[in-house]
Amino acid sequence: MSQETATLTLHCEDVKGIVYHVSRFIFENGGNIINAQQHAETLDSRFFMRVHFDCSGMGRSRGELRGDLAKLAAEFGMETSLSFSGERKRMAVLVSKYDHCLYDLLLRHQYGEINADIALVIGNHPDLEPVAAGFRVPFFTVPVPPGGKEAAEARMLELLRAHHADFVVLARYMQILTPSFIDHYPHRVINVHHGFLPAFKGAKPYHQAYEHGVKLIGATSHYATADLDMGPIIEQETLRVNHTHSVEELVALGRDIERKVLSLAVRAHADDRIMVYRRRTIVFR
Amino acid sequence: MSQETATLTLHCEDVKGIVYHVSRFIFENGGNIINAQQHAETLDSRFFMRVHFDCSGMGRSRGELRGDLAKLAAEFGMETSLSFSGERKRMAVLVSKYDHCLYDLLLRHQYGEINADIALVIGNHPDLEPVAAGFRVPFFTVPVPPGGKEAAEARMLELLRAHHADFVVLARYMQILTPSFIDHYPHRVINVHHGFLPAFKGAKPYHQAYEHGVKLIGATSHYATADLDMGPIIEQETLRVNHTHSVEELVALGRDIERKVLSLAVRAHADDRIMVYRRRTIVFR
Amino acid sequence: MSQETATLTLHCEDVKGIVYHVSRFIFENGGNIINAQQHAETLDSRFFMRVHFDCSGMGRSRGELRGDLAKLAAEFGMETSLSFSGERKRMAVLVSKYDHCLYDLLLRHQYGEINADIALVIGNHPDLEPVAAGFRVPFFTVPVPPGGKEAAEARMLELLRAHHADFVVLARYMQILTPSFIDHYPHRVINVHHGFLPAFKGAKPYHQAYEHGVKLIGATSHYATADLDMGPIIEQETLRVNHTHSVEELVALGRDIERKVLSLAVRAHADDRIMVYRRRTIVFR
Amino acid sequence: MSQETATLTLHCEDVKGIVYHVSRFIFENGGNIINAQQHAETLDSRFFMRVHFDCSGMGRSRGELRGDLAKLAAEFGMETSLSFSGERKRMAVLVSKYDHCLYDLLLRHQYGEINADIALVIGNHPDLEPVAAGFRVPFFTVPVPPGGKEAAEARMLELLRAHHADFVVLARYMQILTPSFIDHYPHRVINVHHGFLPAFKGAKPYHQAYEHGVKLIGATSHYATADLDMGPIIEQETLRVNHTHSVEELVALGRDIERKVLSLAVRAHADDRIMVYRRRTIVFR
Repeated sequence: MSQETATLTLHCEDVKGIVYHVSRFIFENGGNIINAQQHAETLDSRFFMRVHFDCSGMGRSRGELRGDLAKLAAEFGMETSLSFSGERKRMAVLVSKYDHCLYDLLLRHQYGEINADIALVIGNHPDLEPVAAGFRVPFFTVPVPPGGKEAAEARMLELLRAHHADFVVLARYMQILTPSFIDHYPHRVINVHHGFLPAFKGAKPYHQAYEHGVKLIGATSHYATADLDMGPIIEQETLRVNHTHSVEELVALGRDIERKVLSLAVRAHADDRIMVYRRRTIVFR
Repeated sequence: MSQETATLTLHCEDVKGIVYHVSRFIFENGGNIINAQQHAETLDSRFFMRVHFDCSGMGRSRGELRGDLAKLAAEFGMETSLSFSGERKRMAVLVSKYDHCLYDLLLRHQYGEINADIALVIGNHPDLEPVAAGFRVPFFTVPVPPGGKEAAEARMLELLRAHHADFVVLARYMQILTPSFIDHYPHRVINVHHGFLPAFKGAKPYHQAYEHGVKLIGATSHYATADLDMGPIIEQETLRVNHTHSVEELVALGRDIERKVLSLAVRAHADDRIMVYRRRTIVFR
Repeated sequence: MSQETATLTLHCEDVKGIVYHVSRFIFENGGNIINAQQHAETLDSRFFMRVHFDCSGMGRSRGELRGDLAKLAAEFGMETSLSFSGERKRMAVLVSKYDHCLYDLLLRHQYGEINADIALVIGNHPDLEPVAAGFRVPFFTVPVPPGGKEAAEARMLELLRAHHADFVVLARYMQILTPSFIDHYPHRVINVHHGFLPAFKGAKPYHQAYEHGVKLIGATSHYATADLDMGPIIEQETLRVNHTHSVEELVALGRDIERKVLSLAVRAHADDRIMVYRRRTIVFR
Repeated sequence: MSQETATLTLHCEDVKGIVYHVSRFIFENGGNIINAQQHAETLDSRFFMRVHFDCSGMGRSRGELRGDLAKLAAEFGMETSLSFSGERKRMAVLVSKYDHCLYDLLLRHQYGEINADIALVIGNHPDLEPVAAGFRVPFFTVPVPPGGKEAAEARMLELLRAHHADFVVLARYMQILTPSFIDHYPHRVINVHHGFLPAFKGAKPYHQAYEHGVKLIGATSHYATADLDMGPIIEQETLRVNHTHSVEELVALGRDIERKVLSLAVRAHADDRIMVYRRRTIVFR
């Protein structure tokens, strides 16, 4: 019988003994901590913790553990989340016509680098259907005609539910999602922006970068929120460029860092390594 | 007898034969090209060139060469600049209380990494006088009391002239220079900004970076212009940070990239490797 | 009518006037230099040059230009090479079972980042046939059974000739090629080694890296020579790792830098940017 | 009254409940965990832990805490180490003539980046005495004449003891220390090697790198052991170079990464972040 592990994340007021109480909870239930990480936001006196533990010998069901945890959480005013390796997350990938981020996700998934399954791919154009098909992943085209965004998002939500998607990855999806759509997946919609946020928000960031004569270009993955390109940042990367690079070459170079920051964010999310507090993320590496 | 070399930089309309005519000019005068670099801004049809050549066997004075070059420049509508290894540039360094950029410049100068001499250091505070003294560089304190900026800048200009400074390096100098001061040294005042421009302009960039929860901090060296923090960018660098870093730690980490981008800019300027065109720099590496 | 460009690379003794004579040759034939780069190996007094020029208005055939160049080369004792944008290079890719480098080459080719065509893919296993098929590239399986290397290489050489391959890319091809095979493509077989050469030569470099407790892993692309893993280095990259990474994770992380250094080498080779001199490469960027 | 913190590091067999027992030990004594990190070497079933905790409210002396810890350690077969913020470490710096690493340590110490005091500097040449003097650090010249190594090391050990040095930093010290000297400070002598170990061991690593035509140069900090340049690696860094760089330029560029990896190692050692196990280091960041 194979090992089952669980991942607990929590945050609460920073009082004495949290590590002790959490480790006692796991120890007394027969679990074994594989890794535990903490962080304190000192300005706010807020304590964050992620514990990855072996729960295969605990002799308690997932439901029982969740119940026990609820009691501990109540005692300390913790916000908690508990996931199990036996309940693998499922992701939906939204795309348009660019394929580099999609290929990166499909390949990394195939290599076993992403701790989640790709439930489906949705494109507002049909162009990338063969790519998904090559990896035997269901693909759906949901066009977004002028004036048809509401209907398109309703159709997408339906597809996400039907395929049991837990989170959504915008892999260079070129449509702006409505706040109402994003509200269905709070801190579970991951976007990649092809610029070094907060510089170069909005459209054509590589053109902006060229005009400013920057010597580094950047890419940023973040949780999408109602405020466009301003959600909590998960990963960023920059790449050296110089005066010889045209806008088109910046776009080409940018592909490498876009796919990199997006897949790092997806992997961290799938592993329950990200906690959001206010505008910032705590990413336990 | 030691070798003398010259560095010619020029830009002009991008017509056929520029490389040929320039290399002929040098060849027929008995010079020998050590390195030549070009760049064409295709949108503007503008051609840029930097030629580093051995002129020790040319049998012509610097003045004669400058005269000959003027004729070539007139023929092709070139803007040119010609410098000689025997006429070493002299830099003035302006500082306040932070010493990390000053130390970096003094040490790199001592190691022979900077192709210029440090003529003097001016501080608006006396704190760094011992640092300059340790390297036997003249130091002058020019305080900038409220309402006294005009007089202070007049005094500084006087010192720069008296010490034959060719260019000015703002090594974390915490005063804003007036456009009138900068006009005395067009594209010859090099500043370091402790943020990844054009993000985080102005005051307290590390605080801004912290608030935004960025995962990289940056530093930027650029030519100072009348428009604060918006002059042509010369060098940029970023450094990975995460949620564990306080603002104070961002400040500490930032020192390493501030000194790095500043000294890279100073070295490139001293070597006549930088050409400014519109808002952008061409930096020939 | 579209523009044709040519790329001339040459090396010779470092005497006065090479840039002048080469630029005159191009100017007087009606060509226009787009970019020219030089390098002098001072220890050997050897001069290297790469000139990329517009030859569409030259009114001379490729053959005539090659003839003219031969005269110039004879005069200065130059070794030269001249290629034309209208004669696009063709590459053969050799693979085994790992697909990450192959995907990277196929995708970058599709994005127009590689200035060459993929003539064919040869695998000693059939596993990657569907990958090549997905990009409509011919795939051939040439197994290498024990004792059958000679026959296999003969078959491969036949395929390379039949598909007019100009150079060969070993995209994690797990067989060692014989010197005799490599001699057919001198400095035209590009290999990727999954270690930071010259450390960790030979088999299982990630295991070696783990055992040594290194804090960076590396990958190296180089021209294959008779001396295994010792041919002239083209590109190298490193990646930060730490004590938490198992050998398996090092292998996974290494994929990103392997594909990166290999595709950088392939692009540089396709653009005639690489010159080999003794054990070292000059790579004009 | 100011806060006192303690840092506990330990390793033992990887059995269930270590985190629980350690956190209980701290909790029941009235301490408060600020940060705890663990690592398991799965091949060896070995568990490593570092706990940084506030002990100001514990009402127990350092000696009592050390006694209590000894009992816990005995129960679980732990090797432990416990240090207190009130017992600041003291470092000795050994130098020859190169000053870049020494300056870096002195400046970072001055900025408060290093959690240790600089007790003294020893040079086998007197050249750097003024540098130490500028920072008001005692400097001693201990020459190492041919045949006089034994006497010199005896004198150095005497100085180290007299100045209560806890660990030794070789800041480009150009003498090879004897195993007997190193045995006095096991895993407490930190060296910087100017190459990417295990490549380029021994003398003139930049010459070796040049000869091999590498495209990256490296620097490595490690604990010195009897086996030259083979002690456990703490930090490594690489820097991109190319064919244009002479050996002298590699040496100059290398200074930046040498000082960087050395000061990172010193800071980690001072913070009790490094544990050595077999040939590898666990560095808790």
